Amino acid sequence: MTGLFITLEGPEGAGKSTNREYLAGHLRAVGIDVVLTREPGGTPLAERIRELLLAPSDERMNADTELLLVFAARAQHLAEVIRPALARGAIVLCDRFTDATYAYQGGGRGLSQERIATLEAFVQGQLRPDLTLVFDLPVEVGLARASARGRLDRFEQEGRAFFEAVRTAYLKRAEAHPARYRLVDAALPLAEVQRSLDALLPEIQGLYRG
Amino acid sequence: MTGLFITLEGPEGAGKSTNREYLAGHLRAVGIDVVLTREPGGTPLAERIRELLLAPSDERMNADTELLLVFAARAQHLAEVIRPALARGAIVLCDRFTDATYAYQGGGRGLSQERIATLEAFVQGQLRPDLTLVFDLPVEVGLARASARGRLDRFEQEGRAFFEAVRTAYLKRAEAHPARYRLVDAALPLAEVQRSLDALLPEIQGLYRG
Repeated sequence: MTGLFITLEGPEGAGKSTNREYLAGHLRAVGIDVVLTREPGGTPLAERIRELLLAPSDERMNADTELLLVFAARAQHLAEVIRPALARGAIVLCDRFTDATYAYQGGGRGLSQERIATLEAFVQGQLRPDLTLVFDLPVEVGLARASARGRLDRFEQEGRAFFEAVRTAYLKRAEAHPARYRLVDAALPLAEVQRSLDALLPEIQGLYRG
Repeated sequence: MTGLFITLEGPEGAGKSTNREYLAGHLRAVGIDVVLTREPGGTPLAERIRELLLAPSDERMNADTELLLVFAARAQHLAEVIRPALARGAIVLCDRFTDATYAYQGGGRGLSQERIATLEAFVQGQLRPDLTLVFDLPVEVGLARASARGRLDRFEQEGRAFFEAVRTAYLKRAEAHPARYRLVDAALPLAEVQRSLDALLPEIQGLYRG
């Protein structure tokens, strides 16, 4: 048994956490071992790296530093949480993974796909998510929801052009690899978003049994 | 003008800090702009990454995580301190750099030279130190000096075999590339070590003017 690795991607305010809980509830109800986790973070050490990444700072963080910190946290998370969970046959529902790196550090910061792919191969080897749900949302809706949550982190302080580039990068990846990605319209009311997730549940259970 | 990049390598207790000050004093006395810095660290953000690397922790740090954190701090240090100092023509005296990565993460942790070289090229491009002083010391002498300094960090808590592997890795690198490395016998009394540094000063000034 090798489990199933599902990632949820999209901006702040897209409902990833709420919908991750929703999916977990349905999968656990049929007896599946589900692990909920997130990036950057997922272990105490990786969460400390997350704090470095998110804390606003007077010192400008070099884009390579940001990228290497993201993958340092990912290496720890993979070794301590994701690989062991998949090895025992669990479904891992992870809030953000390497697609976020292509979107934020690639699209947002302008780092090349090639540099990101180098570290992806370095840290992950052959491991890629089995299924990725992209919660898509107009930029102004996500920004309004995020700012309503209080103090903005180092990424949330970026301007609109940054988040447009992040959204474009997510949509391009989903379009380029339709077998792995499912686009979720996160601007719809929650009940409708969850109806679209209900439609995905048989597919997830099929992949899991497969 | 492109400055000169000199690194000081070796274990805790080898006298790198004292001798870095000694060299800086002599170089400043002849009017040279000298920047003293260290790794991991050298900027406020990179020093926070250093804290993560050195803090003893209940969670075992994955070897890849350690390596990526080292290079994340290095990318920041290069962008904020080392490259600007070299660009304005300074001599940079840096306490540890990538040779320490080959020694500690390579020799000590057993990571392959190839994996380290991948990140070295990723972060540094073509940049390498112009001169590297390896302060060599029998392992038991370094351990005794380090433990006399008080609470041991995550590396200092390693066993003797780890530090023997670190020393062997340093000596192998120095032997393989004699043009760049100068071996300093750090077990000698300080006055004798500094006499050997006095002999190096004309060479350093020659490289600097060259």
